[in-house]
Amino acid sequence: MHSNAVIFRIPDWLQAQRPDTPTPDAAARMAWVIELSRRNVDLGTGGPFAAALFNMETHAPVATGVNLVTSSGLSIAHAEIVAISMAQQTLGTFDLSRAGRFELVSSCEPCAMCFGALPWSGIRALTCGARDRDAREIGFDEGPRHPQWIDELERRGIAVQTELCREAARGVLQRYAAAEGTIYNGGRGQ
Amino acid sequence: MHSNAVIFRIPDWLQAQRPDTPTPDAAARMAWVIELSRRNVDLGTGGPFAAALFNMETHAPVATGVNLVTSSGLSIAHAEIVAISMAQQTLGTFDLSRAGRFELVSSCEPCAMCFGALPWSGIRALTCGARDRDAREIGFDEGPRHPQWIDELERRGIAVQTELCREAARGVLQRYAAAEGTIYNGGRGQ
Repeated sequence: MHSNAVIFRIPDWLQAQRPDTPTPDAAARMAWVIELSRRNVDLGTGGPFAAALFNMETHAPVATGVNLVTSSGLSIAHAEIVAISMAQQTLGTFDLSRAGRFELVSSCEPCAMCFGALPWSGIRALTCGARDRDAREIGFDEGPRHPQWIDELERRGIAVQTELCREAARGVLQRYAAAEGTIYNGGRGQ
Repeated sequence: MHSNAVIFRIPDWLQAQRPDTPTPDAAARMAWVIELSRRNVDLGTGGPFAAALFNMETHAPVATGVNLVTSSGLSIAHAEIVAISMAQQTLGTFDLSRAGRFELVSSCEPCAMCFGALPWSGIRALTCGARDRDAREIGFDEGPRHPQWIDELERRGIAVQTELCREAARGVLQRYAAAEGTIYNGGRGQ
């Protein structure tokens, strides 16, 4: 089977969730993202992770993403990658800094890949719920992230906050583990 | 504008280049990938980078990718991401190790994002042309890659070779710089 495009489709339920309401409270933004991660688990559309981009002036959401690895069959389809790509498509630029100042709110700290994707994206802030170790705890290999990852982002003009509503976010990871959700680490051969 | 999918389209010329010929010689595989990177520059379809996945038993190519950042408007559309995603779509799995043993041949060392994407993908080997510093030399911020990136990949069962046909690969980067190709680093605010 050959195709002429890479495609990851957004689930219908997430389309229906597209928010139009500014959310000035940081914890409320995170709570909303964590709720998306929970729905992604309960509806079986991917891993226990969600993310959204918010305009930092208006606090209006501009794009959402959930983990789509198992439903899309693509290992890159992490929530942060989906949210950033949807925002770039919507705003018509590969550099979000050209369209404004945007915060990525993510239900979990970035893995090594998503961490590396952030400087290319043009976002100005990252807010995380669960810790890296909370994802590792249920079996995900979050990969070889730079040891000084927060400093490296801040040097590139991306402000970082961690552990906002951590326990609620961790609860969704635990819910996924309890439901025996797929742990989609890449295979390491024989 | 809202869409229900993230899409990066493969240029028509790359579709037409789809190879069917096993290429047992490593330098010949790399030379072919470097030629794709050169065409991507000359045809204006993206940055000066290309990559391809080869089956390590047959040496047959299974997927190709070129950098599509400027043409797709997506900062994640690096050559390695495109090639890995096309291979996963073609083979029907988010973990390539389930379908065989695959080598990613890339015209340049991975940036921080693509590096982080490799363990998730299920590839077994990575072969690179240009060095990271060759990309930095023309202005790309390759990002905060883990300082022990090769060791980290090898610990995860991914064999790494660097500097295969480096000068030829670097020549394409220089060609892009001379043509004043877009340097698509993410903005860092004011």
